[in-house]
Amino acid sequence: MAKLRNDTFIRALLHQPTDYTPIWIMRQAGRYLPEYNQTRARAGDFLSLCKNPDLATEVTLQPLARFPLDAAILFSDILTIPDAMGLGLYFAPNEGPKFERPLREEWEIRALIAPDPVEHLRYVIDAVSQIRRALDNSVPLIGFSGSPFTLACYMIEGEGGTEFAVTKKMLYQRPDLLHHILSVNAQAVTAYLNAQIQAGAQAVMLFDTWGGALSHHAYHEFSLPYMQQIIGGLIRRHDNADVPVILFTKGGGNWLESMAATGCDALGLDWSTDIQSARTRVGERVALQGNLDPAVMLTDPATIASEAGKVLAAYGSGNGHVFNLGHGISQFTPPENVAALVDAVHNQSVTYHTSR
Amino acid sequence: MAKLRNDTFIRALLHQPTDYTPIWIMRQAGRYLPEYNQTRARAGDFLSLCKNPDLATEVTLQPLARFPLDAAILFSDILTIPDAMGLGLYFAPNEGPKFERPLREEWEIRALIAPDPVEHLRYVIDAVSQIRRALDNSVPLIGFSGSPFTLACYMIEGEGGTEFAVTKKMLYQRPDLLHHILSVNAQAVTAYLNAQIQAGAQAVMLFDTWGGALSHHAYHEFSLPYMQQIIGGLIRRHDNADVPVILFTKGGGNWLESMAATGCDALGLDWSTDIQSARTRVGERVALQGNLDPAVMLTDPATIASEAGKVLAAYGSGNGHVFNLGHGISQFTPPENVAALVDAVHNQSVTYHTSR
Repeated sequence: MAKLRNDTFIRALLHQPTDYTPIWIMRQAGRYLPEYNQTRARAGDFLSLCKNPDLATEVTLQPLARFPLDAAILFSDILTIPDAMGLGLYFAPNEGPKFERPLREEWEIRALIAPDPVEHLRYVIDAVSQIRRALDNSVPLIGFSGSPFTLACYMIEGEGGTEFAVTKKMLYQRPDLLHHILSVNAQAVTAYLNAQIQAGAQAVMLFDTWGGALSHHAYHEFSLPYMQQIIGGLIRRHDNADVPVILFTKGGGNWLESMAATGCDALGLDWSTDIQSARTRVGERVALQGNLDPAVMLTDPATIASEAGKVLAAYGSGNGHVFNLGHGISQFTPPENVAALVDAVHNQSVTYHTSR
Repeated sequence: MAKLRNDTFIRALLHQPTDYTPIWIMRQAGRYLPEYNQTRARAGDFLSLCKNPDLATEVTLQPLARFPLDAAILFSDILTIPDAMGLGLYFAPNEGPKFERPLREEWEIRALIAPDPVEHLRYVIDAVSQIRRALDNSVPLIGFSGSPFTLACYMIEGEGGTEFAVTKKMLYQRPDLLHHILSVNAQAVTAYLNAQIQAGAQAVMLFDTWGGALSHHAYHEFSLPYMQQIIGGLIRRHDNADVPVILFTKGGGNWLESMAATGCDALGLDWSTDIQSARTRVGERVALQGNLDPAVMLTDPATIASEAGKVLAAYGSGNGHVFNLGHGISQFTPPENVAALVDAVHNQSVTYHTSR
């Protein structure tokens, strides 16, 4: 493997010394960028953009052309796996993702098969290879997938939401059926992430967007164990380099200790968690990624620099911090505010890394 | 004061011995009850129902006629205070509450005045007196208010939501303005809850529905201190009885220790928090109220009894537990499932109180 010119992100995830705190931004290739909106318009719609490796490569690189970010993240959707399972992903105008054929009957659930990523998710794997070539070892590429539980919510409800009534009814009344879905999903996600790694993803992240909607006990039965199973099945070394794994459960601040025990390298933190006490709780076992309130990005460069400084100070000196927002960047963020954030993090963080 | 025939709820909040674990249910007077829907139809709309003390009394008592609940809660809306401030509360069909005149300009914020509850919220105070008469000392009556921050979110945004972009922009860029709103709100809520207590409310609850949307530091600057200020200003003994205070921040599981230090008697827990570890964290300082996942109520009596039993067992033996859901009951809950829950909690909990 050719050496990465900037491996700060990978080193931070592995708790190795770095000169400054690396930063990338969840949803950094997205609607707040005018050039993204132009490419998306050319593609026709969001799903066509995801399924076209040329255009997915183009939008993945757009934020890196503007800002000196320390990582790229594959442009894709978290629902590619259920789409490949035949559930029919679509995006209604001005609404979130939906499925034409959500899981309604037991036979539909029993008939689920984990898709072969190389065959059924070729467009994602091709995008990974193509993005890697385009990045030319400048910064690492992050691959990702939705978590088994988060995928199951969409597969069962047919859409996103905040109540998950159908999913939870199944969870409490027919846990065997939900476990079956989760088990197939875990198998599918493992194969999918490994295919991304083999195609060139240099770190991977599991997005458990809806795990935080579960009770403490349900999270530990229906979300976390399946993520742990995936982490255990991932290729952790590829092309002579470690491939770190980041685990992110939005709203999972109560559960950091058990998340840190899954074998992942880093935890993503949403903005409700104090990164200082999170660090105390998990010790040196994992790195931490986060966790500026995305709403700060709607303000102005001076406020952003000041608030970013508070997050850096809360994490404090030493290794193991990757800066990010606590959730995806808002489409209403002025791009110049992102420039201000990246600058502020790079400049202010040097002081926390002097003991290298 | 005539003695309450059933004071189990008050005793549990005060960490005193009881024969069983008391239960009430957030939003127990609500749309899952056909009789509620009939009364609401007679009132015309939700706001007319809130503003009519006769009808508010009627719906407050409806769940008690069906189920042997251990407390009644005033039927009202959390947004009565900003309505009394002149912001113009209204409910569009099939949408949440909205304000005709949200706070947009600095002069509007500077002109805010805490309403005199006896003058401007007479309908609520009258409802409290009337409900107390109707309850005839059977079970205690809970009064309540939205928290200063939660009210501010609605006052600034003009409606509910999940992002609170305008509120947070003010929080980060003009904290002085937000502090001014919160200070007026805290004064208003204190007077409002004290008027409810003087009219007969035997316990009060602060609903901080949106505090969980804040970062750790913002919660401790913009939500918690104002609730602490209110708690410090409340009448804690009235009519020869203690008036316990319950504090509930949805999504506040990370912050239980600081919430317990506000001087409240009990913390409401949402369902994401493990009640067993919550009890360990707060010790005997406060009682705990909660925290069954409301989605369990959509299942069946056997599942409900089993899941309720897990919450009781997690809390364990001893005093200081009030059973509740972790959030308001869903409108899709079959009423017979509520009967099953109340029965299950009353019957199964006896074993945890034998050492009385």
